[in-house]
Amino acid sequence: MTVALVGAGPGDPELITVRGLARVRACEVLVFDRLVAAELVAETPPPALRVERDGLSQDEVNRLLVAHGRRGRRVVRLKGGDPFLFGRGGEEALALAQAGVPFEVIPGVSSLASVPGSAAIPVTHRGVASAVTAFAAHDVEALDAAALTRAPGTLVAFMGLSGLERLAARLVEHGLPAAMPAAVVSAGTTPEERTVVAPLGAIARAARGLPTPALVVIGEVVALRDALAPARRTAA
Amino acid sequence: MTVALVGAGPGDPELITVRGLARVRACEVLVFDRLVAAELVAETPPPALRVERDGLSQDEVNRLLVAHGRRGRRVVRLKGGDPFLFGRGGEEALALAQAGVPFEVIPGVSSLASVPGSAAIPVTHRGVASAVTAFAAHDVEALDAAALTRAPGTLVAFMGLSGLERLAARLVEHGLPAAMPAAVVSAGTTPEERTVVAPLGAIARAARGLPTPALVVIGEVVALRDALAPARRTAA
Repeated sequence: MTVALVGAGPGDPELITVRGLARVRACEVLVFDRLVAAELVAETPPPALRVERDGLSQDEVNRLLVAHGRRGRRVVRLKGGDPFLFGRGGEEALALAQAGVPFEVIPGVSSLASVPGSAAIPVTHRGVASAVTAFAAHDVEALDAAALTRAPGTLVAFMGLSGLERLAARLVEHGLPAAMPAAVVSAGTTPEERTVVAPLGAIARAARGLPTPALVVIGEVVALRDALAPARRTAA
Repeated sequence: MTVALVGAGPGDPELITVRGLARVRACEVLVFDRLVAAELVAETPPPALRVERDGLSQDEVNRLLVAHGRRGRRVVRLKGGDPFLFGRGGEEALALAQAGVPFEVIPGVSSLASVPGSAAIPVTHRGVASAVTAFAAHDVEALDAAALTRAPGTLVAFMGLSGLERLAARLVEHGLPAAMPAAVVSAGTTPEERTVVAPLGAIARAARGLPTPALVVIGEVVALRDALAPARRTAA
């Protein structure tokens, strides 16, 4: 009938939305990201066509969605996190709109707050941070480090692990204190979750060897973890 | 057994997570925000105690969660959006931690990307915005307008409708173009959703009379709505 761009959430399969799961369970074609939980892919009905996004270019993904959507199939494009927060959902939505294929967007739990939260770090907190800036950090040299340094509140870098040494150095050069608390959360909300906490000036070395996906959190809120982590219980 | 701080999502009841709904359905005590969908409150089992958060101070909410948590009851604190993104979940988590009451945090879909998304505005988009700054705007004079003006990417103001005229004026004074595209989305993801689009310099007048809750979006991504809205279909 239509194409649904669905956010799968941060990793834990139970963090998909109720509507998102319903669409997956009713789909005829599933196009899914590598980082989407296998449990969610397994929720597709047996006759459904399942296509891994990996190995396809964005243009090929767009064409695939348009082609199946045009045939009137129930297509689900299952993406990590939220489709519109570093999920490139806008590009797929534009391709569908330009082709005249009806679609809907079902948001997902972004890593932005959920992954730090899983590591007992609230990205906003009364009296500590009343703003948060999330940015894509795959190209560190292209970032406006001066603007990021002055941004109010917490900084959250997506795709920031591989360039973390340079990212931290640029932020300190532009005025962030090297002592500012920072954290890297790897595989957040999954059983493989690992968190490293260190001052910004030392975070790259501390996080060396952590696997991706990983989120980098910079700001005073990181210090709340000490008070929150002991009583926090991992969801069963 | 424990207290769960659960994000209910942006308004549409089907946008709660699968785990969040499971906790609501199994709870003995539900403490819920006014903006949480009635359909979700109705999911609590009949013997459960339901407490509206409205009319209670934050301290009273904290004490309520601690008191029921100490008695070993299954308590769900159901909050709009995400508990850690302007949800004051950190304060409740700290109170529980300090009282030695075990708790878990179940993230929710924040309004941050889902409400603009529902209005066909992706908050990030390749070549347009690779960052987003979300901030609490209930106290406009307290904001660092200079820093917000320089923030890279899209601006999203929570609780920004009542002070929107002054917010827009301050951002323009500090250098944002008055012609910058802006939008206000009221009651996003619900049947009452209404969206107003105007240049930043005219957005306050255009949005006059819109009901809260409302999210303010400022940035070039707002212009994508024209291309995305026609083919978008409202979720059934």
